Amino acid sequence: MIIVMQQGALQSQVEDVVKRVESLGYKVHLSRGEARTIIGIIGADEHILQPGTFEAMDGVEKTMRVMQPFRIASRDFTHQDSIVSVDGVQIGGQKIVVMAGPCSVESREMILETAHAVKEAGASILRGGAFKPRSSPYSFQGLGEEGLRYLAEAREQTGLPIITEVMSADEIELVCDYADILQVGARNTQNYSLLKVLGKQSKPVMLKRGMSSTIQELLMSAEYILSGGNMQVMVCERGIRTFETATRFTFDVNAVPVLKELSHLPVVADTAHGTGKWSLVNPVTRAAVAAGADAIMVEVHPNPASAWSDGAQSLTLERFAQLMRDLRPVAQAVGRTL
Amino acid sequence: MIIVMQQGALQSQVEDVVKRVESLGYKVHLSRGEARTIIGIIGADEHILQPGTFEAMDGVEKTMRVMQPFRIASRDFTHQDSIVSVDGVQIGGQKIVVMAGPCSVESREMILETAHAVKEAGASILRGGAFKPRSSPYSFQGLGEEGLRYLAEAREQTGLPIITEVMSADEIELVCDYADILQVGARNTQNYSLLKVLGKQSKPVMLKRGMSSTIQELLMSAEYILSGGNMQVMVCERGIRTFETATRFTFDVNAVPVLKELSHLPVVADTAHGTGKWSLVNPVTRAAVAAGADAIMVEVHPNPASAWSDGAQSLTLERFAQLMRDLRPVAQAVGRTL
Amino acid sequence: MIIVMQQGALQSQVEDVVKRVESLGYKVHLSRGEARTIIGIIGADEHILQPGTFEAMDGVEKTMRVMQPFRIASRDFTHQDSIVSVDGVQIGGQKIVVMAGPCSVESREMILETAHAVKEAGASILRGGAFKPRSSPYSFQGLGEEGLRYLAEAREQTGLPIITEVMSADEIELVCDYADILQVGARNTQNYSLLKVLGKQSKPVMLKRGMSSTIQELLMSAEYILSGGNMQVMVCERGIRTFETATRFTFDVNAVPVLKELSHLPVVADTAHGTGKWSLVNPVTRAAVAAGADAIMVEVHPNPASAWSDGAQSLTLERFAQLMRDLRPVAQAVGRTL
Amino acid sequence: MIIVMQQGALQSQVEDVVKRVESLGYKVHLSRGEARTIIGIIGADEHILQPGTFEAMDGVEKTMRVMQPFRIASRDFTHQDSIVSVDGVQIGGQKIVVMAGPCSVESREMILETAHAVKEAGASILRGGAFKPRSSPYSFQGLGEEGLRYLAEAREQTGLPIITEVMSADEIELVCDYADILQVGARNTQNYSLLKVLGKQSKPVMLKRGMSSTIQELLMSAEYILSGGNMQVMVCERGIRTFETATRFTFDVNAVPVLKELSHLPVVADTAHGTGKWSLVNPVTRAAVAAGADAIMVEVHPNPASAWSDGAQSLTLERFAQLMRDLRPVAQAVGRTL
Repeated sequence: MIIVMQQGALQSQVEDVVKRVESLGYKVHLSRGEARTIIGIIGADEHILQPGTFEAMDGVEKTMRVMQPFRIASRDFTHQDSIVSVDGVQIGGQKIVVMAGPCSVESREMILETAHAVKEAGASILRGGAFKPRSSPYSFQGLGEEGLRYLAEAREQTGLPIITEVMSADEIELVCDYADILQVGARNTQNYSLLKVLGKQSKPVMLKRGMSSTIQELLMSAEYILSGGNMQVMVCERGIRTFETATRFTFDVNAVPVLKELSHLPVVADTAHGTGKWSLVNPVTRAAVAAGADAIMVEVHPNPASAWSDGAQSLTLERFAQLMRDLRPVAQAVGRTL
Repeated sequence: MIIVMQQGALQSQVEDVVKRVESLGYKVHLSRGEARTIIGIIGADEHILQPGTFEAMDGVEKTMRVMQPFRIASRDFTHQDSIVSVDGVQIGGQKIVVMAGPCSVESREMILETAHAVKEAGASILRGGAFKPRSSPYSFQGLGEEGLRYLAEAREQTGLPIITEVMSADEIELVCDYADILQVGARNTQNYSLLKVLGKQSKPVMLKRGMSSTIQELLMSAEYILSGGNMQVMVCERGIRTFETATRFTFDVNAVPVLKELSHLPVVADTAHGTGKWSLVNPVTRAAVAAGADAIMVEVHPNPASAWSDGAQSLTLERFAQLMRDLRPVAQAVGRTL
Repeated sequence: MIIVMQQGALQSQVEDVVKRVESLGYKVHLSRGEARTIIGIIGADEHILQPGTFEAMDGVEKTMRVMQPFRIASRDFTHQDSIVSVDGVQIGGQKIVVMAGPCSVESREMILETAHAVKEAGASILRGGAFKPRSSPYSFQGLGEEGLRYLAEAREQTGLPIITEVMSADEIELVCDYADILQVGARNTQNYSLLKVLGKQSKPVMLKRGMSSTIQELLMSAEYILSGGNMQVMVCERGIRTFETATRFTFDVNAVPVLKELSHLPVVADTAHGTGKWSLVNPVTRAAVAAGADAIMVEVHPNPASAWSDGAQSLTLERFAQLMRDLRPVAQAVGRTL
Repeated sequence: MIIVMQQGALQSQVEDVVKRVESLGYKVHLSRGEARTIIGIIGADEHILQPGTFEAMDGVEKTMRVMQPFRIASRDFTHQDSIVSVDGVQIGGQKIVVMAGPCSVESREMILETAHAVKEAGASILRGGAFKPRSSPYSFQGLGEEGLRYLAEAREQTGLPIITEVMSADEIELVCDYADILQVGARNTQNYSLLKVLGKQSKPVMLKRGMSSTIQELLMSAEYILSGGNMQVMVCERGIRTFETATRFTFDVNAVPVLKELSHLPVVADTAHGTGKWSLVNPVTRAAVAAGADAIMVEVHPNPASAWSDGAQSLTLERFAQLMRDLRPVAQAVGRTL
């Protein structure tokens, strides 16, 4: 970390900062420029330093981080790409993994029909929500455990592992009884109470980026799970909130290669939420694969116009099959399989 | 809700949409313009309709809401300003309420010292965090119940009611044993599992706006608590995330009068988080009061440079006393007291 | 356009609005719902109506547009994709066009070397700045006409048409003497004085999206040029400003298919500015092609570390050649050639 | 400027960067930490260094600025607040200056009526647009020179100095014949061709912040004018573009004290554009004054519902008079007069 002193900072203020740094067990590297004095902090553990510690001191203008504030999630930790394995499906390897299914599990019939269809089209993992974070209290909130049972039945029939969302710590045990991958939604990316408990689980976790989380914050939230001991973590770009209103969110395609540069964790692209409109899902999913995503997640519904949630961004079974046909050559073009 | 059909939408597609609307129990108002056919939905309960229901249908271009999607939180529900009462302190009335205290409770001594000082300077409510949502797992996470006990002791000594954050549903019971007002932080604004449980509590709730929540989404989250039966809700503007990097967040001063127009709920302004820098807290708090905030929340610490969290945006005891002196004439200028 | 009256709007206020609409030559479609009265405006020319006209009237709550506010730029105007032709290069057709070259023309030697190299690697158009919009007055501002002359010489030697930026109306004549395509930069997207003059030119224009322009605003700016009579317009996504700081801008990949849905104009992707970092240019350009861009623009420099501007996002000659090799299979995967 | 080398950067890469820095005439301060080598650049002219120069070099991870990239606009340049004087009106002094008038000059009668009314209510400067930047080519574009003549007549009758917008360099001479202050609009904040010419004028300039300009970029644009020799510059906060859709823009009240900290230039608050809705103008203008703005700019129209532009955010004459009555005690509360 670098501390920049104000123009005209007193010698005593500089000394106070130096003392403070040394009292925390770090060494100091002092540099007096023509306009500003700069204090470099030297030590292995910059990630545990807090800028505010120094910014509140008299004479300090600002601080700047040299290192990323995450450690285990970082490329510095390991240069090898991490692979998350679920029932023989490897996420983060050469093959691009497709997670598909409805936004919400609405009934036994619809999830079974969808599961068989996405499997036949080439999906490797079945998604479906049983506990749903809805912006309105008057909207359908999910079938709960009943939905989990239907998902499990769909897995039995198709062999597809299941990913489903967990919204609070007290649901984890129940969800773990049924699910193969635990999904943390964009509204819970910084729900640290939840993340801490997930760090103690043995099931893999897919952590979605919050709609206004920076890439750094996303990896800090991953660090909560990793530092708790659970190394089976994937991060998921799902669109960020910007001023643009033509789409529901702005899919941050830059984030895919940036995450691959900064971290060794597998990167998933959720292009249903990243666009909000089914007609955009096909081209933007192609883009995500071309940019290097390890897995993609899309919403599929036998009849989107009757969907209880997210109908506008759901693909029909036929459109999903078409997407798979369109994705295969793109995957090959970037040296992957689908 | 208004449904706009695509240019050249088929008659059969229009009919399908009309049938769908009617099957949901609403009436239809059809309008054929020169370029587009428009379908108006007539009925009292627009707030429970979901746009996606129609946007997934063939021939539909888009939908537009006529009404706000919240009901109890709305000015349509009651024109009278709601007042939240806590131990004789009324939030939402003529007097502007000041909530002050440290980011985190760090020790018994510091919270007692701070409590006495802010009380003497004119604060009405003591804030202090015992459970802390920190972006890094390596940062201080709060003293937990020990912190709550110190807060309670500070209340006994000063008579100031206590507001403190609750981060998950399983903490609520414990926090309710000590706190007078439950605070929902910006990272939990859309933690619906938590909001549902808070709707069943008898203690008042202060709901912070998420850093990327729209005003509408903030009021929808308030609606979760209100529709659960807890009518003691305040909403809090605390800065939103924008492209500007000179400040930690952008305090959305527009939101203060907008919230007063759209809702009857009391509006709190958290200018510590809204700016991120102590030197900006004084002018921006004056601005919030001038714009019509019912209460303000600031962070105060006996020695910000040694604070375990948020030191950079914390006022010293003296700077807080100065803020109170500066705010009084501003409050009077807008017909309020402090 | 739809006008929503306030709850409890007076009958006389509704009548005033109706009279106003009719006085402007439109018909009215009145709909009285249970909670709100809604006034639909019927007529062919919604794009010339201004919402503010009605929002300032007593009793009006808000207005909502049914149609897009642009006309010639719209898919409603023509369903066929427009093609811009420059010296035999067709932008908007089956072949994806690559525009490459340095940020600034720095010398005769460097532009000639770059031109030959990008031509050999497969580029169809040479880019290079002679007039440079720099955020600092102390930075290199471009070689001006001298730079244009070097560009023209590079065209003579390689046969590559030239695209270069024009920053103000009084430069247009000079730039037209040398350039084949006139580029409008992101800081001038809403420089209407400039756009009006460009509408009178016979040379094609590539209009970049402003860093905070919505897609609608971008197409409105295109409408300025089109309505002036110049139908040779391309629009260019080049990254928008968001809260994310890991990249210089956020390349809005969604905008590519959205622009193709809303408009018939060719869509260019500038991934150098859209990312700000050379290592991201390759994956994000692949993504842009996979999403359906008609052309791509990248910055290439023989020695980026000595570049007078934009070195960090410039590809070396070799990295550009690699990009071309990587793009070819992606273009084929989406049914295009490169 | 600080250069951070990548983990594992080669000694030869470090040496190359050091040579590069020294070849530019700066000294180097080298610091080898446990995880990263850091190169400090020492010299008086950091503001002319470009980060890209180094970020394109092998082995470099990132650069960080120590100093602001502007010089004359900076508080480091002079600690005394600058005052812009126009015909006896001082902007930046103890008295808060009110600039009021219509968005566009629509006719001789309306501008005269408005001028007399705002003067009577206490305004010091008359605003009015003759050249209008409109997002649609089909909207009213301003009366041009005719509008300027009416403004001049209003000045003669009332004694109020005039501020009006100039959109391109070739209009400057004409506008200078009539106007007292030249306004640069938000869409031209980074129109450097225009800024350079304004740097050569003798009339004061009010520079509006672009809707997505950072505070730093705003001051860099001011630097263009100042470094050209024109020291009579005011900067104006007018709302930034964010994800919030309840208001047209988000008035960045933080920017007011931030600009006062970073710069000595007078700060104007345009709350009409900063909110987009007349009912919000009163509270947000009060907030701007409370936060320390030196001047405010609002839009006033005798009959907003018939305004040719910006009707929704314009105050009636009576509402403006009310605003002045409401502002006076707020100005006094912060030690200013109105």
